[in-house]
Amino acid sequence: MTIDNKTPAWRHQIIVVDREEMTIDGVLSLGSYDEKEVIMETEQGVLIVKGEGLNIKQLNLDKSNIVVEGLIKGVSYDDTSHNKKGLLERFLK
Amino acid sequence: MTIDNKTPAWRHQIIVVDREEMTIDGVLSLGSYDEKEVIMETEQGVLIVKGEGLNIKQLNLDKSNIVVEGLIKGVSYDDTSHNKKGLLERFLK
Repeated sequence: MTIDNKTPAWRHQIIVVDREEMTIDGVLSLGSYDEKEVIMETEQGVLIVKGEGLNIKQLNLDKSNIVVEGLIKGVSYDDTSHNKKGLLERFLK
Repeated sequence: MTIDNKTPAWRHQIIVVDREEMTIDGVLSLGSYDEKEVIMETEQGVLIVKGEGLNIKQLNLDKSNIVVEGLIKGVSYDDTSHNKKGLLERFLK
């Protein structure tokens, strides 16, 4: 049996530590990024991270992993733009 | 040196696994709870969890720990009600 590191028992995980560092696994692509909002597509839909002074500390899409630091205000899944088309539509606004 | 289990290196942490189970450490009190919204006070302010079919699976305030299961839609910190008075005001709405 081979172990595929890309598909562990959980496929998508978010860890927020002390509201200042956030590790997200199961990331498919980074949609957009500025200091107030990071939008990414994950295994479980489009994820929007809101905060202040946000900074992408690590990004490794081979490992489906992003680390964001900054003051985290909230995280939400955007079910209205679950697919790539939806993500694209956001960019075109 | 004694080790206080209540104050590890991180004081407040959120872990969301596959959008369906959420473990929160550093919880001071549970404010309110129904299947669409769980409000709690944490070391880093009031935290609002929104979702569908939310269920508190574990609650241990001695360990400052809550486990919520259900479809997680979003998590946000309510900076306008950072203190207990603010949390109370939410209940009085």
